[in-house]
Amino acid sequence: MIKVGIVGGTGYTGVELLRLLVLHPEVSLQVITSRSEAGRKVADLYPNLRGYTELEFTQPDTKALSGCDLVFFATPNGIAMQQARELLDGGVRVIDLAADFRIKNLDTWSRWYGMEHACPDLVAEAVYGLPELNKDAIRSARLVANPGCYPTAVTLGFLPVLQTGMASLDGLVADCKSGVSGAGRGANTAMLMAETGESFKAYAVAGHRHQPEIQQNLELALDKQVQLTFVPHLLPMIRGIHATLYVRVPGDPDLQALYEERYAAEPFVDVMPAGAHPETRSVRGGNTCRIAVHRPQGDEMVVILSVIDNLVKGAAGQALQNMNLMFGLDETTALRQVGLLP
Amino acid sequence: MIKVGIVGGTGYTGVELLRLLVLHPEVSLQVITSRSEAGRKVADLYPNLRGYTELEFTQPDTKALSGCDLVFFATPNGIAMQQARELLDGGVRVIDLAADFRIKNLDTWSRWYGMEHACPDLVAEAVYGLPELNKDAIRSARLVANPGCYPTAVTLGFLPVLQTGMASLDGLVADCKSGVSGAGRGANTAMLMAETGESFKAYAVAGHRHQPEIQQNLELALDKQVQLTFVPHLLPMIRGIHATLYVRVPGDPDLQALYEERYAAEPFVDVMPAGAHPETRSVRGGNTCRIAVHRPQGDEMVVILSVIDNLVKGAAGQALQNMNLMFGLDETTALRQVGLLP
Amino acid sequence: MIKVGIVGGTGYTGVELLRLLVLHPEVSLQVITSRSEAGRKVADLYPNLRGYTELEFTQPDTKALSGCDLVFFATPNGIAMQQARELLDGGVRVIDLAADFRIKNLDTWSRWYGMEHACPDLVAEAVYGLPELNKDAIRSARLVANPGCYPTAVTLGFLPVLQTGMASLDGLVADCKSGVSGAGRGANTAMLMAETGESFKAYAVAGHRHQPEIQQNLELALDKQVQLTFVPHLLPMIRGIHATLYVRVPGDPDLQALYEERYAAEPFVDVMPAGAHPETRSVRGGNTCRIAVHRPQGDEMVVILSVIDNLVKGAAGQALQNMNLMFGLDETTALRQVGLLP
Amino acid sequence: MIKVGIVGGTGYTGVELLRLLVLHPEVSLQVITSRSEAGRKVADLYPNLRGYTELEFTQPDTKALSGCDLVFFATPNGIAMQQARELLDGGVRVIDLAADFRIKNLDTWSRWYGMEHACPDLVAEAVYGLPELNKDAIRSARLVANPGCYPTAVTLGFLPVLQTGMASLDGLVADCKSGVSGAGRGANTAMLMAETGESFKAYAVAGHRHQPEIQQNLELALDKQVQLTFVPHLLPMIRGIHATLYVRVPGDPDLQALYEERYAAEPFVDVMPAGAHPETRSVRGGNTCRIAVHRPQGDEMVVILSVIDNLVKGAAGQALQNMNLMFGLDETTALRQVGLLP
Repeated sequence: MIKVGIVGGTGYTGVELLRLLVLHPEVSLQVITSRSEAGRKVADLYPNLRGYTELEFTQPDTKALSGCDLVFFATPNGIAMQQARELLDGGVRVIDLAADFRIKNLDTWSRWYGMEHACPDLVAEAVYGLPELNKDAIRSARLVANPGCYPTAVTLGFLPVLQTGMASLDGLVADCKSGVSGAGRGANTAMLMAETGESFKAYAVAGHRHQPEIQQNLELALDKQVQLTFVPHLLPMIRGIHATLYVRVPGDPDLQALYEERYAAEPFVDVMPAGAHPETRSVRGGNTCRIAVHRPQGDEMVVILSVIDNLVKGAAGQALQNMNLMFGLDETTALRQVGLLP
Repeated sequence: MIKVGIVGGTGYTGVELLRLLVLHPEVSLQVITSRSEAGRKVADLYPNLRGYTELEFTQPDTKALSGCDLVFFATPNGIAMQQARELLDGGVRVIDLAADFRIKNLDTWSRWYGMEHACPDLVAEAVYGLPELNKDAIRSARLVANPGCYPTAVTLGFLPVLQTGMASLDGLVADCKSGVSGAGRGANTAMLMAETGESFKAYAVAGHRHQPEIQQNLELALDKQVQLTFVPHLLPMIRGIHATLYVRVPGDPDLQALYEERYAAEPFVDVMPAGAHPETRSVRGGNTCRIAVHRPQGDEMVVILSVIDNLVKGAAGQALQNMNLMFGLDETTALRQVGLLP
Repeated sequence: MIKVGIVGGTGYTGVELLRLLVLHPEVSLQVITSRSEAGRKVADLYPNLRGYTELEFTQPDTKALSGCDLVFFATPNGIAMQQARELLDGGVRVIDLAADFRIKNLDTWSRWYGMEHACPDLVAEAVYGLPELNKDAIRSARLVANPGCYPTAVTLGFLPVLQTGMASLDGLVADCKSGVSGAGRGANTAMLMAETGESFKAYAVAGHRHQPEIQQNLELALDKQVQLTFVPHLLPMIRGIHATLYVRVPGDPDLQALYEERYAAEPFVDVMPAGAHPETRSVRGGNTCRIAVHRPQGDEMVVILSVIDNLVKGAAGQALQNMNLMFGLDETTALRQVGLLP
Repeated sequence: MIKVGIVGGTGYTGVELLRLLVLHPEVSLQVITSRSEAGRKVADLYPNLRGYTELEFTQPDTKALSGCDLVFFATPNGIAMQQARELLDGGVRVIDLAADFRIKNLDTWSRWYGMEHACPDLVAEAVYGLPELNKDAIRSARLVANPGCYPTAVTLGFLPVLQTGMASLDGLVADCKSGVSGAGRGANTAMLMAETGESFKAYAVAGHRHQPEIQQNLELALDKQVQLTFVPHLLPMIRGIHATLYVRVPGDPDLQALYEERYAAEPFVDVMPAGAHPETRSVRGGNTCRIAVHRPQGDEMVVILSVIDNLVKGAAGQALQNMNLMFGLDETTALRQVGLLP
């Protein structure tokens, strides 16, 4: 049994980790910390877990965590980088669901996240936890940077066509739409149902932290510079990300075959038949990224549609997938969950 | 392995059965029939099932079904009663998710369902599949009438207090609210999102088919007559039923203890602590009925709150629970699913 | 022109007042105060008002308000009672949209609102602003207590049947459902879309402040005691209240005729034909209370359905209706707005 | 008073026309036809209109219509072209809310709409009713082709930047999102709330009828060819369109000033301040198109955000705006409606 701890388990990625972990046959959940909820039963805060766990939130405490084999950080940005080293030094492996170890360029990271990095050497060591990109490195990693939700959907959608070498690498557009759970569980007028229901808007058009993460993913994979415009929007629903990707491809590669081959061995990427339109609900609660490739009217512009559940493949599910890999388990353990439709 | 067939699997109870069955370790799904979709892959109609089943819909065909150990009818009312006898005679056990075998009084059934019953003797034989009421009878049943969604939530909520003998049996009120998936997948202007979204209304206040089913459940259990007003409402959401039940209880029984004891051994009924308000989302996708008991301001009027997922405990999940019982499996097999929250 | 001021206009009742007032032909909007938003244009906070008003929020300031003919308080409970006297003394009339002047019994008020009342004499003077009940008194009132949202829907729905003298006055049930805008615009985890969307629950079953207000309305009108159970629920939508009311009526009065007559002269109460089910969307954005009366299966239990838009007839629209009455205008001025459907 | 008739008033554009027309001070509504609902009161089908009109649906009948000054066609595509000539010949002016007269190139029209055109000469005569483009021509038009919903939002958003002459005219992207009311009121499984709620998808990526309409608008205005990729998506909400437009602009024109000037005199186009993100709810029920212009990170790619209510500025409101222009009224008559927010 893998002894697992969670730091900061009161948010949506926390409860989603719990939803998946309580049914994982190889996991023993040891500790879940929360400063604000210490002493409260997890299932009191999240009644869907009643009957599945008797765990209580405890005060953050490195000692309890240091007895774990693996610790997940489901904390705000800037926490994991303060605490990871001590755990790693004690032999505990770490998966950070926040952004502390995602960006390799420290200046870029500081500019977007507004703080100095506390442990640059760990940034260098951390493996970016997108299994479809870095599976082998994840298996042996001590420290995994779990990808952002938008970067997961966009990177998986863009990579195969960009890797043909036939696509124009400037003028890339990622028009992305996310459900409100991506904004977390903090009290916030802007995320009230009366503010976000029955309405739709773009946000952060001037710049969003996931843009440099996506750009890094693409540039590292291609070893070339790309010019990408990323516009996130807020959907009047709870779960799901839909990325609509635009890229000019002058030639005529068989993109359908290309995508199918690229992901044939991946249990959590599903390339739909030509002409399909993936729905976010088809992956609700599941760890799948579902992709369709289009070339409307035979034009130069190729359109790729990519959907995930932002809390699963975009956060907790991908973290579990990484854990499975790190501990030599079948990648799909506890992750074979059919999307909740309708 | 239990060889299972489904008749009429294109509706929401059908896809929900599939969602649960494809991960059931003791089930081999043999056949799923649909006149309208014959020849089409199930996963083409329901992309959430891509990667989980290669099954195709086939024409309704008793021969294929007769090789099964169990057949689920996920059909409109009036179909199962035409086909059940032949299957039963061939040694196939049957669970009907429609209403054909729910009402023991044939006149009542005909009045509410608008047709003559095709096989009165099977009505007499059929076991009403509410495991918390009829567990032993279900284990040995050939034919199970799976309960309606509202009757499940209301019956489980009302029974313990009524069985005290202290409650007034007239003037019972069941004010119930259901998500739109309860209305099924048929094309229907009234159920368009533009008609049902961002709005709320009662319907069928003059009379609803689930009223006599609830009344039968209570009267059989109590062996007394009850007078019940049942008002269903339509919620602007997809899954979930919330029953708010009102009953005058002149004395002062310890209702909290009573409910906890009554359901202590039931894996799928969860009595919340005093003062709690169950949310439908806490059981979304799960097979749990979650109940809380209140006596506002110490008045005579007791208020019971009872929530289920109408497609799971209110339909497909309960059907699986019945199947598990009928085939000697652990009642919870393939049904331990944490509610999808948020 | 009526010179109008608004105190505390940043919440939903504030913006709704503005939506209605900017198109009122007899109103000159003079001042709107907000401590937190002083100096900001109203239309910056509420872009739907762009092009309709250039007004800015200002610091609360009795001097500016004292030049008005009428001041609306759209403030939290406990504010208006601090400031009303000075305005009234200066000849300004006041409509309080909060609860400060709704409850005549000061002990009851203190128990439910958790504070001592600052001006008991004004409570005695204040007219309860339900025009269908108190139209003449409102016309000449200096101080109007605008009713709560639930009390408006419930009182209008219950009164005619109770006033027959044939109804049982104990065991009354008001099962009420409200959209989330009723909870206001404050930052609050419980009202996030990720918490309230696609889910449904009861709340405050143990006791809610609107219960004594409803009870007072009924008891004053009937001059008799009533026993009422009031259970509010939260709908996954923004606007709208639906009250489902239950009352035992042993005899057989022609309730349909009774309701139609009672409200024949009321421009904002619409009694639907027998058998109808009012939808909240039919009054979205409009000031109408729409009612239908049922006697399911001919039983003793009568069911009344009553819907309003909680922000209009349940708050700002009713306040405007009161203003129209107080200033001798046609009651419907600026309030003839067709519900936004779909 | 303008005598007005409506053909085919049972759909959402029909009821929206009625919502606006019943409060128009210069309109006398004479007749509204519907084959399926003839004899039924309009307010029975649409209870929000109770108290605002006593009109009944009547059988389609040219005689009744020929007494009107203006007839709106709120019919499926292909109806208006059969009936317009007779009305026009009789001196009745016509506004078609369907697509019969929108596309000047008849081959293009036939290819996308799948039928031969019944009156090519009227296509040539018809004025495309986008007031911000064709105001003078609309004033004197006999026959107005009311624009599609997507084309309204996209054309108003794209035109000013394209007309600078500095933008690249190939590789234009219009990533558009629409509420479900755009799909109409027909019974249709795909538009059930259980199918469209809490989910998001693209549709018709291979090609959509509004693409040639948008392209025509841009090419006529610019007198140049453009290459445009148009991808529509379906939002889990009822009203509202959000167009996110992408165009490469190599130089550095002051786009904010440009947009503000272009629309300074237009009562129904609102250019927001730099950096803003228009929300669809800010125009819900209103006739405004609200636009914001961005250049993320100073890149070549310009992003324009444009929102409308698809049933108002995208259909019925724009039709009324056209009517006001055709009959010499103030363009804003009966259209000054503040968006319903929240």
